[in-house]
Amino acid sequence: MAGDVPVNIDLIRAAARRLHGHARRTPLLSSPFLDRIAGRRVLVKAECLQHTGSFKFRGAWSAITALPEGVRGVLAYSSGNHAQGVAYAASLRGLEAVILMPADAPAIKIANTRALGAEVVLYDRATQDRDALGAALAHERGLELIPPFDHPQVIAGQGTTGLEIAQQARDLGVAEAEVLVCCGGGGLTSGISLALEADAPGFRVRTVEPEGFDDVAQSLASGAVVTHPLRSGLCDAIVTPAPGKLTWPILRRLCGPGLVVSDTQALRAMALAQERLKLVLEPGGAVALAAALFLPHQIKADTVIVTASGGNVDRDVFLRALATGETYADS
Amino acid sequence: MAGDVPVNIDLIRAAARRLHGHARRTPLLSSPFLDRIAGRRVLVKAECLQHTGSFKFRGAWSAITALPEGVRGVLAYSSGNHAQGVAYAASLRGLEAVILMPADAPAIKIANTRALGAEVVLYDRATQDRDALGAALAHERGLELIPPFDHPQVIAGQGTTGLEIAQQARDLGVAEAEVLVCCGGGGLTSGISLALEADAPGFRVRTVEPEGFDDVAQSLASGAVVTHPLRSGLCDAIVTPAPGKLTWPILRRLCGPGLVVSDTQALRAMALAQERLKLVLEPGGAVALAAALFLPHQIKADTVIVTASGGNVDRDVFLRALATGETYADS
Repeated sequence: MAGDVPVNIDLIRAAARRLHGHARRTPLLSSPFLDRIAGRRVLVKAECLQHTGSFKFRGAWSAITALPEGVRGVLAYSSGNHAQGVAYAASLRGLEAVILMPADAPAIKIANTRALGAEVVLYDRATQDRDALGAALAHERGLELIPPFDHPQVIAGQGTTGLEIAQQARDLGVAEAEVLVCCGGGGLTSGISLALEADAPGFRVRTVEPEGFDDVAQSLASGAVVTHPLRSGLCDAIVTPAPGKLTWPILRRLCGPGLVVSDTQALRAMALAQERLKLVLEPGGAVALAAALFLPHQIKADTVIVTASGGNVDRDVFLRALATGETYADS
Repeated sequence: MAGDVPVNIDLIRAAARRLHGHARRTPLLSSPFLDRIAGRRVLVKAECLQHTGSFKFRGAWSAITALPEGVRGVLAYSSGNHAQGVAYAASLRGLEAVILMPADAPAIKIANTRALGAEVVLYDRATQDRDALGAALAHERGLELIPPFDHPQVIAGQGTTGLEIAQQARDLGVAEAEVLVCCGGGGLTSGISLALEADAPGFRVRTVEPEGFDDVAQSLASGAVVTHPLRSGLCDAIVTPAPGKLTWPILRRLCGPGLVVSDTQALRAMALAQERLKLVLEPGGAVALAAALFLPHQIKADTVIVTASGGNVDRDVFLRALATGETYADS
């Protein structure tokens, strides 16, 4: 079983070898305008430029390429980005993909997942149990379940982002930094934390969540898992009730304190990413940048590295974000 | 004098060495959704992610780092992107920068240029002669003029984009392609053409211009320089009356036939870049992508590589582009 594989730096390095030439090595961007707002150096790991528009392709590719020979297809449940990552990775490997998605997921994510060749099965977030449905479907059709975060090879795939951050920051001469990661179930955050523990021990990882969905920040503060009721929010990509069984021990050991931003701050960060970095972010992919820009007193390091973890945003939400835009340039 | 330096592959390779660690190696992106629209493989060189939001930083850095010791400052005339590139490159090198800009340039470009530390001098595009004004200012204040395209070290700097395209395409196994370049005065196009002639001889460079500003396409078709009256247009970054004295012989020898797109096609390409690549493009930076997507019958190669040369767009123009957006995903 996947759960028996130890999640450690060796697993991440092995995933990096499998991802080489398949996942993109995304750039670490910056802007003097953002530095000025934040009052410190801001480096942005642009995972919105990853295949399918988010870091999720890494974990999906890692998990799918670690499957035993003879597997016919995969199944995933996801609010959208994981779905697209799994659908695309499966199609590149010639595997069938069935995706279980909430019926209220952004339209663009449902449409994109289908266009990437997956079969989409919709469910009602309020009345149906996603995990039970997923397990039943997997059993019934003989598919391998790829969970969105609580899986060793998924965490290992997301962790390759951290290996790249360590290398790219070293190339810039950065030896100490706070690394802000948009955090849902903690797959990306735990993977990056393990990678940086090994390759950039002067870096400290901090989770960033939207207000009202700060289960990880509260868990880190209390030392035990805090669970929130499942509901939807603007930052849909990172709305989860609690950290995972595999991710939580890693988060507790290596991360914190957690940071929390408002939806408005996430939207303003999206507008600034558009203006200053020429990047399209989704709200859940912009919370780390928002924390870097708008919570300067909660950060100590001279350099802050943020993950810009996804860019799959419906047009109406993107337009709302642009409407918050302010120009910070001197005139 | 700069004009005496031969513009060739050696000059480009020397510029690449000076740019290493200072300019960004921008990613070569793709999307299965764009491939489907174009009917062939589309690779996008994302120079909108370059420092200051356009490829112009390359030429500016190349020219400024090639100046003799003891130069006090530089002067440039530009509709905006070249200005920002020169302002930022100069500030990183501790040099004074004076920028001569048309008074009707996009507000964001004027503001950004000032915020990057340059002194901006505005002039009237209709009544004043930019070249004469620039020469007078340079003489009066002892500044070195960095022209926007007709300068060996500027062309060499832009040509480093071509070295990267050759390497990145080779890594993807692409040996034959048409390379579509957004073309104003021809600095980027001529530089890329020389780089690809040396490093990717199976590639063919084609200029792309907006309708009504197709002086290069007409020049290539007739074999002699065609000059258009100077006026402004939506694709302000690449609106020039004619190819340059240094760029034209290179364009004539290595490029064509030229492609021409409408403003509406440029806006639609911007919307698709936002949706499918998570990139912000300006109209002049989107014409090559527009040609790849909307002029399929004028292209022969199985793979088309396009430069996405800049992303410095005023918000109202960006919103106009998004309003043209169509979702091409199957549903």
